[in-house]
Amino acid sequence: MTSRRLYELVLANGVSASPFVWRVRYALAHKELPFESVPIGFTDIPKVFGDRCKTVPVLAEGDAMVVDSWEIVNYLERAHPDRPALFSGPAEYAMVRLFDVCFFADIIRKFFSLYALDIHDSARPEDRTYFRESRERRFLKGTPLETYVAGREARLPAVREALTPLRLQLARGPFLGGATPNYADYIAFGLFQWVASVSTLPLLAKDDQQLLSWLDRMAGLYGGLGRDPRMKPLFEG
Amino acid sequence: MTSRRLYELVLANGVSASPFVWRVRYALAHKELPFESVPIGFTDIPKVFGDRCKTVPVLAEGDAMVVDSWEIVNYLERAHPDRPALFSGPAEYAMVRLFDVCFFADIIRKFFSLYALDIHDSARPEDRTYFRESRERRFLKGTPLETYVAGREARLPAVREALTPLRLQLARGPFLGGATPNYADYIAFGLFQWVASVSTLPLLAKDDQQLLSWLDRMAGLYGGLGRDPRMKPLFEG
Repeated sequence: MTSRRLYELVLANGVSASPFVWRVRYALAHKELPFESVPIGFTDIPKVFGDRCKTVPVLAEGDAMVVDSWEIVNYLERAHPDRPALFSGPAEYAMVRLFDVCFFADIIRKFFSLYALDIHDSARPEDRTYFRESRERRFLKGTPLETYVAGREARLPAVREALTPLRLQLARGPFLGGATPNYADYIAFGLFQWVASVSTLPLLAKDDQQLLSWLDRMAGLYGGLGRDPRMKPLFEG
Repeated sequence: MTSRRLYELVLANGVSASPFVWRVRYALAHKELPFESVPIGFTDIPKVFGDRCKTVPVLAEGDAMVVDSWEIVNYLERAHPDRPALFSGPAEYAMVRLFDVCFFADIIRKFFSLYALDIHDSARPEDRTYFRESRERRFLKGTPLETYVAGREARLPAVREALTPLRLQLARGPFLGGATPNYADYIAFGLFQWVASVSTLPLLAKDDQQLLSWLDRMAGLYGGLGRDPRMKPLFEG
C-alpha cells in the first residue's frame, strides 16, 4: 500500500484548523483513500518543507508531494481514476471552481473579520507571534487583531445574511450539490469547521434550521468525519 | 412544427431588455429551438396575461405556457431531450443554480444601483410611470430613481471589483463553463446585455481584457445572437 500523508494545520487543542485542509480531508474520504494525518503548526511549515511550500494542506503520496488544495484535488482525480470521482465531468468541475471564487473568497474574509483573534488565541503558544505579525502585516495594514475584531457582534447579522445563498440552495435539496454532496459542499463545510475549531462567538442563530441541518448532515458523512468533541458550537444557546 | 413564442420585455428602441429573457434566448439557441419573439412593454404584461403572470420571460409552446426563466429551462430540458442538453447532469444543474443565487443575485442589485434611471429613460414612454412607481415603492422605499443613482460614478470601481470572480474563472478557460459555454455563461451574459440595452455610463474599463474578450465571444455565439447595433458600449473610450 502506498503511504499517504496529509499535512494539516493544528491548533493548541489538537484540532485541524484550516478550511483548505478540511475540503481535502473530505475529498480523500469521498475517494475512499485512507491517509495518515501529520499535524503541524504555522511555524513548523518552513521547518518541515523549507522553501518548497508556504501553506498547508500538503499531500505526500509515494514519491509525489502536492501543494495547494486544488492541485491536490486535480492530482487525486488523475492518480486514482478507479476511485469514486469528485466531479461528474469538466462542466461540474468548472462550476465548483466558479463557486470557490464567487462565494468562498467573500465568506472567508467575512469570517476572518469575526474570528481573527480567536484563531490567534487558539493557536499553539509558539505559533501566536508569527500568526499575529504575518496577518496584521499582510491583511490588516498593521491594525492589531484586537482592533480588527472589535465590535464584531454588530457585524454578525450581515455575515449571517451573506450566507443566504446557501439557504436558498439547500431549500431545493439536502446538499449544495443536489441529492448527494459534492466538492462545493466540502468547500463550504470547510469554512464552518474552521470557525468551529476556534470560535468564541456563535456564528448562527439557533433557528437557522436550513443551515444547521445541512451542517449536521455534512459532519455525519464518512463515519462522522466532521464531528469532534473539541470543537465549539456554531449556534447560540 | 410546434409554434413557439417567447414574450420579451421591450424598450422604446425595440431592444430586448431583461437579464432573465436573455438567458432564455441563449438557452433556446443552445437547444437549437427556433422561436418567435413577442416584444411587450412593462404595462402590457397584465393586458396580455391577466392574472396568469406578472413577469417575463414567458414561453408559449403548443398548449404549454411556462412562466419564470428556471421553469422554462426545466421545461425545455424535459420537453426536448432530443436536443442538445443544457446540463451534463444533476450536479452541473445544482452548481449553476448555486451560481445564480450566489453571484447573479448580488450583481443584479449592484447593476440596478447604477442603471435604474437609465432603464426608466429607455422604457417606452407609456411604461415609464409604471416602472418608476413600482420600483421606487418595491425596492427603494420611496426614494426617487434620480436620488438613488446620484453619484453613481463613485460606485463604479466597487462594482467593477465585484466582477473579479468572473475574471478569475475566465483566466482558466474561455467560458465560465470551461472549454464550452454553459448556462452559467448565459446567466452572467444576460446581466451585461441588460446593461448594454440602457447604459449611459460605460460599465467596464477599456483594459478589462479578460471580461471584454468573453463578452465578445458570448455575443458572437449562435450566429451573433448577442449583437445588436442599437446597444450601448459596455466599455469606456
